[in-house]
Order: sequence, then C-alpha cells, then structure tokens
Amino acid sequence: MNESVLLTDLYQLTMLQGYHDQQMNDTAVFEFYVRRLPEKRNFLIAAGLEQVLSYLEDFAFSEDEIEWLAGTKRFTSGFLDSLRTLEFTGDVHAMPEGTVFFANEPILRITAPLPQAQLIESRLINLLQFQTMIASKAARCVMAAPGKSIVDFGFRRAHGWEAGLFAARASYMMGFSATATVLAGAEFNIPISGTMAHSFIQAHRSEEEAFENFARSNPKDAVFLIDTYDTESGAKKVVRMAPKLQGEGIKVKAVRIDSGNLLQHAQNVRCILDEGGLKDVRILASGNLDEYELQRLIAANAPVDGFGVGTLLDTSADAPYLECAYKLQEYAGRTTRKFSEGKVTWPGRKQVWRVLDEKGCIKQDTVSIEGDSLEGKPLLFPILRGGKRLFPEMPLAKIREYAAEELKTLPEDVRKLEPVKFNPVKISAALDSLVVSTHKSRF
Amino acid sequence: MNESVLLTDLYQLTMLQGYHDQQMNDTAVFEFYVRRLPEKRNFLIAAGLEQVLSYLEDFAFSEDEIEWLAGTKRFTSGFLDSLRTLEFTGDVHAMPEGTVFFANEPILRITAPLPQAQLIESRLINLLQFQTMIASKAARCVMAAPGKSIVDFGFRRAHGWEAGLFAARASYMMGFSATATVLAGAEFNIPISGTMAHSFIQAHRSEEEAFENFARSNPKDAVFLIDTYDTESGAKKVVRMAPKLQGEGIKVKAVRIDSGNLLQHAQNVRCILDEGGLKDVRILASGNLDEYELQRLIAANAPVDGFGVGTLLDTSADAPYLECAYKLQEYAGRTTRKFSEGKVTWPGRKQVWRVLDEKGCIKQDTVSIEGDSLEGKPLLFPILRGGKRLFPEMPLAKIREYAAEELKTLPEDVRKLEPVKFNPVKISAALDSLVVSTHKSRF
Repeated sequence: MNESVLLTDLYQLTMLQGYHDQQMNDTAVFEFYVRRLPEKRNFLIAAGLEQVLSYLEDFAFSEDEIEWLAGTKRFTSGFLDSLRTLEFTGDVHAMPEGTVFFANEPILRITAPLPQAQLIESRLINLLQFQTMIASKAARCVMAAPGKSIVDFGFRRAHGWEAGLFAARASYMMGFSATATVLAGAEFNIPISGTMAHSFIQAHRSEEEAFENFARSNPKDAVFLIDTYDTESGAKKVVRMAPKLQGEGIKVKAVRIDSGNLLQHAQNVRCILDEGGLKDVRILASGNLDEYELQRLIAANAPVDGFGVGTLLDTSADAPYLECAYKLQEYAGRTTRKFSEGKVTWPGRKQVWRVLDEKGCIKQDTVSIEGDSLEGKPLLFPILRGGKRLFPEMPLAKIREYAAEELKTLPEDVRKLEPVKFNPVKISAALDSLVVSTHKSRF
Repeated sequence: MNESVLLTDLYQLTMLQGYHDQQMNDTAVFEFYVRRLPEKRNFLIAAGLEQVLSYLEDFAFSEDEIEWLAGTKRFTSGFLDSLRTLEFTGDVHAMPEGTVFFANEPILRITAPLPQAQLIESRLINLLQFQTMIASKAARCVMAAPGKSIVDFGFRRAHGWEAGLFAARASYMMGFSATATVLAGAEFNIPISGTMAHSFIQAHRSEEEAFENFARSNPKDAVFLIDTYDTESGAKKVVRMAPKLQGEGIKVKAVRIDSGNLLQHAQNVRCILDEGGLKDVRILASGNLDEYELQRLIAANAPVDGFGVGTLLDTSADAPYLECAYKLQEYAGRTTRKFSEGKVTWPGRKQVWRVLDEKGCIKQDTVSIEGDSLEGKPLLFPILRGGKRLFPEMPLAKIREYAAEELKTLPEDVRKLEPVKFNPVKISAALDSLVVSTHKSRF
C-alpha cells in the first residue's frame, strides 16, 4: 500500500483529466525546495531521495486502482485507459542525501511529461519533507553530543509506522549509532539496540530477580533499567549482584536511567558504580531528550555515555513540518512563475553553486539557471534519466560518511542550536534576468 | 509491511527471551492512557482502535521474520520456535472510537499472556497515539467553524503515508466533510475532494484558458483556484467566463483562495462574484489554516463557505505527540506499580464512570477498579475476547455520528480553543486503597 499510486491528492487526477483532454504532454520542470527555514533551524539536510527514486521506478496503476477510479464517476474512460500504461519516464536531478542546504535552494528537480511530473507531487513532497526534517533534527542532536552514542527510541510516538522507519533511517544517516525499531534494522540494515522496559521489572517479584533473569537470558546485553522504583537503590542492586553474574560469566554492560533529574541521578549512579568497582559499566540516559537537553547534559559534564532520543526526534517536535513546495518552473520550453502573496517562485531550471572558505566551511551558495557557469561546486546531480537510475542505490553507510563530511562544512555559528542569522544564498544575475522576463511575458 | 510484527522495539524481544526462559506466561494486564493533556488541549478523543484490532487479529510471525531474527544471533532457537505459533489470544476492553476522555483515564486495556501483551506495546502506542491526537485536533477545527465544510488537505506534509491516511480517517470521524487523499477514499470510504493546483494554471498560456479547460474536463466540479497571479483579477475572470460556461451547460461551483489575507480577499471576491451575478458560487479558503485561524475568520464573518485544512492538522503541529503510556498494571493476579519520578502509575484493572449534568454535559469522571459499582455510565467495553471480536467492525459513518454526540457532552468552557482548567477526573476510594496496598507490598 505504501507505494500505491493512489497516494496522491484528488486534484492531481482532476488536473490530469484536463491535461489529457488538451493533450498537454510536453515537458514540465518542477522543483522541490523549502521556502523558509523553521525558526529553530539554521540549516537543513537533504534526505528521502532513495525513497523517491523507488517510488518513481515502481510507478504504475494496477487494474484494481483503475477500476476504483472508474467507480468514482469522475473520469472519462479515455483518460482512465491512458493511466493503464502510465509510468515515470522522466529525469531527476537532486542533491545527494546528506547534503547541507538552505531556503530557496532546489534540492530535487523533475523533468518529465507534464502529467507524470504532476501526478507524483503529493507523495514526492510527503517522502522528501519527512526525512529531510528528521535528518536535520538528528544532525543537531549529533552535534550537541559529540562522540556520544545516540540511539533512536521514537517508533512508538512517530506518526504511523512509515514515519518510525524513516526516522530510524534519517537519524542513522546523520550519525546516530542505532535504532530500537526492529523492522528498521531489517529494512535498512541499521544496527538495532534495546534491553528492557519497566514492565519487565514489574512483572517480577523483585528488581533483583528481574535483573538476574534478564542477564541470564541476554548474557551479552546485560543492560539494566534502574529507575522503576528508585534509581540509586537500583544502582546499588546492580553493584551487589555484579560479582554473582561475573561468576556466571556475565559482565554487566550498562545501566539506563529514564526519569527524574538525569544529571543528578547520573552523577549519583556514577559514584555508586565506581565505588562498587564497576568503573566499566556505562550509563545510558533516556526520557524526553532532544538536542537542547543533550547540550545541557554535556555542558554539565553529566557522566552519561549514551543517549536514547525518541519522541522529540521522531516527531521533530519543535519543527514538525517544513514550508516546502514542489513548483512548476517551466512547461513546453516556457518558464513559469507563481505570484501568490508570500509564495512567489523563482522560474526556470536551476542549479546551486557552493563556495567554501579557506577552512572548508560554507561561504556562499549561488542559485542560478542550469548552464550558467559559476564559481564553486554544483550541488544538484543527474540521478535518473528516462526513468532509469544512472547509478546503483547508494548504501546507507556511504551516505552516512558523506553526511558526516557535510556537517564539517557548517560554519561554527551555524552549528549552534540557537538561531543565528546566516543566509549564504545569493541569486545570480542570470536568474534575476529570467525573473524579469518571466514577469513581463505574463501580462 | 504495515502489519509486520517486527514493527516493535528490540527490547520487547529481549524481554520476551527472558519471559520464555522463566516460563512467565501468566496473565498480564496493560492499560493505555495519557499522563497529561498537551498544554493546548482541553480534552482528547479516543481513536485508532479499529487499527489496533486488525493488528491484533493478524498478529503472526512469518518464516522470513523468524529467520531474520535468528540472523541477529540474539535469541535462542527454543525462543524463536515459540514465536512461530505466537498469536494474540487475549482480551481487549476499550472506549469506543470518538469518546471524549481526559488525563489518567485508560482508554484501552489488554488482558493476555505476558509475552503477547508485552510484544504488541510499541505498535499499539504508535497506532493509538496518532489518531487520538488528530481526532482531538480535528474536533477543535470542527467546533471552531460550526456548520462549515472542512476538507483534509494534509497528506503531503503528513509524516509518511500512513499518517496521511490515518489523519484523513480521524478527521472525517470528527466531522470533516472529505479528504483530498485518494487512497484514504479507497481504503476508508471517505468522500474525496479536490480541484486544481497552481501548476495547472501556470501550465496554460493564460488563467482564463486554464479555467475553461478545467471546467470542460470536470464539468461537475468547476472550482477555480484564483490566486496564482492576483486574487481579485482571478475572480473577475470567473465572472466574465461564467455566462460562456453556462451556455455549455457548466455551472461554476466555487472559487478557492490559497494565499494572502484570506478575510480581505474573501470579502473582495464575494463582492466581485455577487455583483457579477454569481451569488451561488461558493468561496473556499486554504493555506496555513488551523482551528485558531478558522475561529478568527468565523468571528470576522469572513464570507467563506468551506475550508481546506492541511499541514497543521495532519502533523498536529501545536501538539505533535501525546504523553501517553502503556503500562503493566497486574501480572499473575498481583497488581503492579511503577514509581519512576513524574511517571507513577495507578495499579490494577480499571474502569471509568462518567456522570453528566442536567444539560447532558460531562460533570465528573471517576476512575476506579473494575467490578466497583459507581454512579454514571462506564466508558470501557469488552471488544475482543480470546483474540476474537465480540462485534463486527464499526462502520466509520457510525463512529462519526457517535463522535458528534460525544462533542455535545463537552461543557461550554471546554469547547473553547483557549486552555481552561477543567479536570473532571476523580480517583475512587477503591482505587485509592489498591494504591496503598500495592505500595506496601513492594517493600
């Protein structure tokens, strides 16, 4: 169902009926971009391209879908027949996943016969927005806790299963070490991580019994959740039982704290563990964490070795959507422009050129028209031609390496969690002229 | 993939390995509830039950899934064998979808052998949280614009496809008239609605030509988007072309405004249409709408007949998650309780009794233990017994009627968008005693 072509807005189909009747099949160029960054983001990270590509490759109506549409009595049989053979035969240019970008920079361009380019709009936005939003949030978490292991815990409060899976993918891409979501491990080959919940403790007659049983059943993963009743008592129990487990060949690996004042508890627990001879036992923390809380804990030197970040990541709670758009920039060789208030578009097929400073940090991005020749490296690459991939699927591990390099190009100020005024995006002279001529031709 | 049993957190499986080794198969009771209402919600609406029921009915591991788990080398073959025959054989008690509820009221209870009840946790929360959140937001939109048609436009910015589909379902449940998402129409039999985007206008040489072509291709749905270039000019064009279309047997149905000052534009457009003899042509508005904006437009008497509400609904942007939990309340006949700071639970199998005042509005809810006999009507009903449904699936149209009745039970203050202090939830004497005895038994 996740790749059904009916994952679209009805208006795409009513417009397609119009295009069909007028035989408007010429080449259209649409671009996806973000109009304004969310208030709490200094940059964004492009993500979701791989899912767009598989959507486009598999794009086809089934007989059942055609029949269902016929049953709505909204469409002519000639039009419905045309859908039977519709597939995506166009080109895709895009920024590679993991690329840093800013407002008004196209991160993906579709060049295809108008009906195809139109019909894919809804799902394409749906796919690109979510992972871009999560990758951007995850990047902030990773930068707030350098060198620490962070695990995605968010599936349960993600908006549906697909959001949970894609959040695992996008956060791993940006440097998270693992996800708790088993299916994300199976689908994307992401390391999975997880130990016990409070219910495991409660189901046992005592916390000790629960810890021991868990350790015996998961000897390589002896991580104990110690806050079900009282965090410090939980830590003391771990100290008391460690020698016994050691005797059975089980090494206590870590404890997890999931509630209360995490800094205070982590400090107390560190003392208890160290005094008990468990200096190697790591402390994990979870519960309402996000990049701000990670930064606070790191700044306070909290003795926490790893973090579980869940709800606030998977819902991108402080920026739960992007002001993004997928807009027609050219049809049948004619550039087009929308003048709706607050939503004016830049016409034409565009490219972004990026110039780095002597430290390798982003200095200036120039948005111009394709074919222009400017200083810097272009950010958009041809990815699909005539509906076929030009390259094999990029392994997630490779994207992860590339994204880590990209994060290093952020100027120091821009890496901060607090909003800064940094907009490196300039419009080129060539694009400016195109704007003027497109404006004139409309009247 | 949306019903894969691997849609769970790894810790469910590591805990199950422990339960398996200890043969902990006794009956567990878990309850799902919301700890605190979001700041901007005065009440919540239970939703998502139907999806939980189909998840439970279909719950089964495939051979591929078992093999994948075996490949992780985390589990014993005896445990993996036990998963081969695992199915959900337990009971479900729940509030019907569409029921108004408040913090600390269980809206669903699972009674099942511990491993089953444990393993379903992650997906159950994932399913219940999202639709409950959207239904609650949609209820606010409906109450803010009484008598107006509201359509869900949010698919593109929903978090993945499932969120888009479930948002369509939950908002229709609460009184929206339709959704733009085609697949939601096909899946849930929700009316679908939609006309044209700006790209349709831009792909044509002129706005007039676009309007005419659209009307001829969709004669029963002649709704024109008039803000691509200039809203008032767009309205004037509609007035000029209406007689011509009329001559062809096409009646202009409505215009849509999607940007700028919607109140001002709607007033101008209403004048233009009325003076042009198009008093019957409706005005639709969209673009960044939510319940607050609907309330503002209604209060200002904006001449808008229907609204499209998208992003801010489908992401529940002002409350993008719920502080919800699924907690073990009883195992093997023993009540259990968690004492984690800020997350203390109420033990035992619970029921909620609701008392209405003389106007039929909610006066008091009492949370007590099952079997207690209190004034009012109980809110939780048996739904599944031994893994089988006690009733056939409730049609969405019926749930919609029930939800409309439920909204009428909200006291006037609570219907307001602004936060009010209204907490009708009391804890019964019987539950209080259980709390005390559970507390004691722990030490």
